[in-house]
Amino acid sequence: MKIEHLGIAVKSLETSDHLFARLLGKENYKKESVEREGVTTSFYELGDSKIELLEATNPDSPIAKFIDKKGEGIHHIAFGVDNIFDEIERLKKEGFQFISEEPKDGADNKLVVFLHPKSTNGVLVELCQEKL
Amino acid sequence: MKIEHLGIAVKSLETSDHLFARLLGKENYKKESVEREGVTTSFYELGDSKIELLEATNPDSPIAKFIDKKGEGIHHIAFGVDNIFDEIERLKKEGFQFISEEPKDGADNKLVVFLHPKSTNGVLVELCQEKL
Repeated sequence: MKIEHLGIAVKSLETSDHLFARLLGKENYKKESVEREGVTTSFYELGDSKIELLEATNPDSPIAKFIDKKGEGIHHIAFGVDNIFDEIERLKKEGFQFISEEPKDGADNKLVVFLHPKSTNGVLVELCQEKL
Repeated sequence: MKIEHLGIAVKSLETSDHLFARLLGKENYKKESVEREGVTTSFYELGDSKIELLEATNPDSPIAKFIDKKGEGIHHIAFGVDNIFDEIERLKKEGFQFISEEPKDGADNKLVVFLHPKSTNGVLVELCQEKL
């Protein structure tokens, strides 16, 4: 398990891409929309990990709701795993709760699933596995 | 620059160390108090990065105030840099604001400095450099 990426909710990718390029000293390496999730994403490589900026594409997007409630900021942490199905089983046995137990297609060619923050100290945790 | 660690504010290290050991599938590798900052920390290795749990040691600790305001959750992201003084200069020229521009001793044998979240999209960003 490693920190695959850190997701940051932003109001405007245009503004925040400019900001993060200056902060990190490098440009994003891709932008990608995930329409089912109502987000457009922008990725920055950072060592072994990535920063993912997330902008809502509509007012019902989880990112829009997050920003309404908490403002811009860190939205989730994603742990990269080799086998997401094994890891879901392991964590269910440990008593963790999932928002949905069925992995879905996420950005960046990944299968993704989210644990419920109430079982993880208020932290929204994503598990992700590279799609084969 | 890499994600050196991710700081998570918790009410009780006893409770959260138990939780994160089950979540990450491994035990913490150290606990350390930083009295000047009013925190006790617990570290987990995770690939090239770390998770740092932070418990307040007194009610005036920044961690106690964070939890009062926002609840438990992700508190900051720390970028590891080779030369913290050069990086502060670079980011000041880019217009970023710092909570304090003078690096201080942090946990884990590091010099640390924090950028102000109002200049970084609501994200509390720490820069850290291994002490020589």
